[in-house]
Amino acid sequence: MLNIPDSPYERIVIIGAGFAGINLAKRLAKKKYQIVLIDKNNYHQFQPLLYQVAMAGLEPSSISFPIRKMFQKNKNVHIRVTKAEEVFPDQKRLKTDLGEIYFDKLIIATGADTNFFGDKNFTNLTFPLKSISEALSLRNAILTDLEMALTEPDYEERQGYIDIVVVGGGPTGVEMAGGLAEMKKYILPKDYPELNAKEMDIYLFQGGERLLMGMSEASGAEALKCLETLGVKVELKKRVTQFDGKFVYTKDGDKIRAHKVIWAAGIKGNFLKGLEKDQTERGQRLNVDRYNQLQSHKDIFAIGDIASMTSEQYPYGHPQVAQVAIQQGITLSKNIVKGFTSPFEYKDRGSMATIGRHRAVADLLKVKAKGFIAWVMWLFVHLFSLIGFRNKVVVMLNWFWNYMTYDQTLRLIIKAKKLPDTKSDHIS
Amino acid sequence: MLNIPDSPYERIVIIGAGFAGINLAKRLAKKKYQIVLIDKNNYHQFQPLLYQVAMAGLEPSSISFPIRKMFQKNKNVHIRVTKAEEVFPDQKRLKTDLGEIYFDKLIIATGADTNFFGDKNFTNLTFPLKSISEALSLRNAILTDLEMALTEPDYEERQGYIDIVVVGGGPTGVEMAGGLAEMKKYILPKDYPELNAKEMDIYLFQGGERLLMGMSEASGAEALKCLETLGVKVELKKRVTQFDGKFVYTKDGDKIRAHKVIWAAGIKGNFLKGLEKDQTERGQRLNVDRYNQLQSHKDIFAIGDIASMTSEQYPYGHPQVAQVAIQQGITLSKNIVKGFTSPFEYKDRGSMATIGRHRAVADLLKVKAKGFIAWVMWLFVHLFSLIGFRNKVVVMLNWFWNYMTYDQTLRLIIKAKKLPDTKSDHIS
Repeated sequence: MLNIPDSPYERIVIIGAGFAGINLAKRLAKKKYQIVLIDKNNYHQFQPLLYQVAMAGLEPSSISFPIRKMFQKNKNVHIRVTKAEEVFPDQKRLKTDLGEIYFDKLIIATGADTNFFGDKNFTNLTFPLKSISEALSLRNAILTDLEMALTEPDYEERQGYIDIVVVGGGPTGVEMAGGLAEMKKYILPKDYPELNAKEMDIYLFQGGERLLMGMSEASGAEALKCLETLGVKVELKKRVTQFDGKFVYTKDGDKIRAHKVIWAAGIKGNFLKGLEKDQTERGQRLNVDRYNQLQSHKDIFAIGDIASMTSEQYPYGHPQVAQVAIQQGITLSKNIVKGFTSPFEYKDRGSMATIGRHRAVADLLKVKAKGFIAWVMWLFVHLFSLIGFRNKVVVMLNWFWNYMTYDQTLRLIIKAKKLPDTKSDHIS
Repeated sequence: MLNIPDSPYERIVIIGAGFAGINLAKRLAKKKYQIVLIDKNNYHQFQPLLYQVAMAGLEPSSISFPIRKMFQKNKNVHIRVTKAEEVFPDQKRLKTDLGEIYFDKLIIATGADTNFFGDKNFTNLTFPLKSISEALSLRNAILTDLEMALTEPDYEERQGYIDIVVVGGGPTGVEMAGGLAEMKKYILPKDYPELNAKEMDIYLFQGGERLLMGMSEASGAEALKCLETLGVKVELKKRVTQFDGKFVYTKDGDKIRAHKVIWAAGIKGNFLKGLEKDQTERGQRLNVDRYNQLQSHKDIFAIGDIASMTSEQYPYGHPQVAQVAIQQGITLSKNIVKGFTSPFEYKDRGSMATIGRHRAVADLLKVKAKGFIAWVMWLFVHLFSLIGFRNKVVVMLNWFWNYMTYDQTLRLIIKAKKLPDTKSDHIS
């Protein structure tokens, strides 16, 4: 059992401490409910800046926040660090790694993870970028391969170590490619004077016709221009079909030598067993109505990336972005507290992506911005969205430092050490 | 081959980027030598603060500094991240994980690692604290076990998760035990209100008659007093003889339930194959003369923790502390540049240990300090010894933050992710 004390209040179990789950839990915590918040990590992670962790521009702790600290003042919130395994809707029962729990209401805010579209090689051999651990793993690989390149006399073999292929032209792919291009320009010559930085190629493959399909055409075009100025080899309308750990192959017959492929080509919902009936056909999301309620179980709700809600304006579902998750968390809290009277309306505040040190693109309602102004906007929006005063200060200092010096001191290859044999590894 | 370019200058190969190796390399880098600096990590780590990383008080990056950044301006310094495997003294040849290299002079600054005295269970089941990876592993284990304790209904089983045994009453053991006691006092009640903090016991076992044997008797007594005030169960003259992952056994028949044993009971030199003749009997150190020269090979030197140098004042060798390593690095650089005219003289600047938030002990020449004053001294000495302006600032901010709030936001259980199958794991 999860060892949750009895309570006179209704028990609301929330799975997932991402943007959706946290925003819901924070509001319900102030009311008379017993909240059980379940996550497989003991921290909330700020996904939009994961790529900067991978680039050794930020520390993991700067974009993570311990969940327990967030709710230190709410004695009615019980946090359990465990993995939700299966729900039994008719019995209002949830099975987790640490035991079972009964709920009055269940909120599924499990988010989305990388979609490798069933390809085993993509799954096993490429680098996804959806968690802190994955970002650190990529950071270690980039730095380790640069060390290996130093002692590799053969040009072709060396290319394998230093060239990097990014797959997917959404915000993650664009921001990652831009960051790598700046690493090549500013860091490589200083840290690795023995390597020829010009030998490093950064590829960005995008299956669609343009970059940033979720944003305006103008922003997509601007991103392309910026990346090409930085030297990124952007390949539009090219589909990566195969990767064997050494070479990347495209549908058109290209073959590129690179050991590192960053996979940012799609996501799928983190599906929970027991809700097969509610699942969508595409992207493993859960069909919900405008109150985020599952169609088949009136006490189960889904919010954020895992939820698929259609409306007149969004006939194919809402975009899987932080703003939708935050707003759904807030709206559901109101509906739970006040009775279900406010159907969800998405207020699109716009979207933005940064490309390197002082360029960005932003689509805000009717206004489009680009260049330095968009970049400053991007900085502020991300800074203010971070949870925790310390994190805001540390990230701001880091960015300022990077901007002034072009040169962080975070390029550390810190390998994990195996835990002693006795240590349980329940939390994965 | 390590792929080091030809040079008209004498080639000095330095193994180890600890205090000794770095201080030597920095000085020689300004002279006409070709320096090859080898370390298995790409960073220098500040060992005296490792325990604060384990306690989630500091980030790994705050006490690490990338070696490449340190030598960005020295084109005559070649850094190779690899493990030195064996030396062939007569051929002036060194074998590493990445290939072989010839040297004119070889400096062994490989430091020391934890000594488990040959016990398999101690080696496999306890937590040592000599590297960043080990500190993070301990941090994860402490936090994970607190999560496990939450859902463990049985008192005895719960004790296994939350009690911690520290073995060794030197500075590391004393500082770690003090840190744990403060965690119990200030963090546990806030982050884990569902646990009864009083159930947590922290044991410190010391085989000798008193704590801090390397310091004055007064300081040892003061440390004991402080730890006992903090609630640490200090057990003097008790030897831990066995640990099976669940229970700790002492020579006197004590049996304590604890899954985590922190092993700070001794160190041994990181010995390099090929130098068996020069090895000491105790602690695997290398016998050197007053110029840090090996007796059997005049072009091979050892400095820092790995070196065993005796003098009238130190008939059993110098203490294995940072100050000796730094001073030997500096002295050897002078001797190499100017001819061997300055036998090493250790200037003992004293030693200190901190116990918790504002207590410390310090033995400085004839002066002994304790309490708040010693603690402020401890802060300044450690802050100024850190490499890198950013690290000094970040550590100072962190300490200030901790001091004001008693409450860091670094309590993150970040598990390593396995690298994709293709990734070479040469750097270990």
